[in-house]
Amino acid sequence: MPAEFTTPAIILNEPQLAENIGAVARAMANFGLRDLRLVRPRDGWPQDRAWAAASGANWPLDGALVFDRLEDAIADLHMVLATTARPRELRLPVMTPREAADELHAAAAAGQATGLLYGGERAGLETRDIALCQGVVTIPVDERFRSLNLGQAVVVTAYEWGMAVQDSPPEIFAKNMASPAGQEALLGLYGQLEGELHAAGFFHPPEKTPSMINNLRAIFTRAGLSEQEVRTLRGVVTALSKGRGKVLEKLAAKRARDPSS
Amino acid sequence: MPAEFTTPAIILNEPQLAENIGAVARAMANFGLRDLRLVRPRDGWPQDRAWAAASGANWPLDGALVFDRLEDAIADLHMVLATTARPRELRLPVMTPREAADELHAAAAAGQATGLLYGGERAGLETRDIALCQGVVTIPVDERFRSLNLGQAVVVTAYEWGMAVQDSPPEIFAKNMASPAGQEALLGLYGQLEGELHAAGFFHPPEKTPSMINNLRAIFTRAGLSEQEVRTLRGVVTALSKGRGKVLEKLAAKRARDPSS
Repeated sequence: MPAEFTTPAIILNEPQLAENIGAVARAMANFGLRDLRLVRPRDGWPQDRAWAAASGANWPLDGALVFDRLEDAIADLHMVLATTARPRELRLPVMTPREAADELHAAAAAGQATGLLYGGERAGLETRDIALCQGVVTIPVDERFRSLNLGQAVVVTAYEWGMAVQDSPPEIFAKNMASPAGQEALLGLYGQLEGELHAAGFFHPPEKTPSMINNLRAIFTRAGLSEQEVRTLRGVVTALSKGRGKVLEKLAAKRARDPSS
Repeated sequence: MPAEFTTPAIILNEPQLAENIGAVARAMANFGLRDLRLVRPRDGWPQDRAWAAASGANWPLDGALVFDRLEDAIADLHMVLATTARPRELRLPVMTPREAADELHAAAAAGQATGLLYGGERAGLETRDIALCQGVVTIPVDERFRSLNLGQAVVVTAYEWGMAVQDSPPEIFAKNMASPAGQEALLGLYGQLEGELHAAGFFHPPEKTPSMINNLRAIFTRAGLSEQEVRTLRGVVTALSKGRGKVLEKLAAKRARDPSS
């Protein structure tokens, strides 16, 4: 991520369980977020159980700021989005996490300080808290089970932030599919395989040979073989046709020497 | 969601903490998933703490199936994606959760049974587990803190499934995607091929056998074989190993009768 971007602050309003605050820190670390702010944590702060639950993602906890009032916690921010079900009372823009990440990313790119606000485990956010925000993020959950865990709500929004920041679809796909075999190598494999299958009497009836060959080749072209995999498959064909043949040849020779066996 | 879609099964391989299994159930319920499968849960099953952690999302737990072997847990599925960091040893398609959700949605729309596989909290997935899958889902985490909580990995992928289902009707490659082989058929092919290769002395040195097998399997899972193609390839293996053997057997017999030939 370019250094000029600031990441969104994660603001937890009246969080209850230290374990959940730890889970939030872990989700933040997974997606490059650092700035954690706690408003009236129920059990006080710091809490050892938060660090235990963070599994090593300590820095958001070590640097967490604690506030008495939500207004103070967000005073330096330009754009704060409240993560909650759609509020009936307020006419605020309602966004999916994906749309919210785009909004936050655009704001951060324009030099704004941003934040995502989450309510406590039981009470959620009050209308007056939401009214301090520039918009609402609603995670599209199944109507039959709407209750999202606090850490899981943070991970979904943090994940979308991470996706929005990534410039382009990951190169990992391209990397993993790299160095495909050339046509020549493929044709060499096909020639060997089809030659052995001919010798083994595989292609019958003869008029179906071309379509059988095409169907076989399609399997291997579709697999996007690498040069190494072509060599492996040629070894497979050799082993199956010659290696196994050698075993049978030995048996046949043995039978010829000793017909009773 | 239209009734004709089946949702992906969530398969946890060797999960350790019942609390995490409960968190997984909750994430599943949030995004309309129901089919939970457990392979060798460390502390046995059922576990009260799972229900406690699910906060009322009981139905995935109530209906959870337990398996001794991963192969059995996925036997009825057509497309299984492994959620893990990019595997260095295997050449499988690597997807973001978003791309994976699109793939799964398209497959489900074409009538396929799908699944998402997750490793245990500490060990993650082994290469041999990943090699059973048609692709890999890698959640794009910050390099400075890659360790994702199990429940949070599930919530991110389940959320993307929910988004994919809401967003748009999938583009159906129905024609090309039709009647893919089930895992059971694939495992049958692998068993035959690997058995013949063992008999032919293909696997050497012995310590490399598992990785050689994984790489071979990855080629065929990647190809997305149909049932018909699995039958064809089984015929290929039979022809190469037995048919070629017969030719050599005949030649050997001929040589035995007529040593000058």
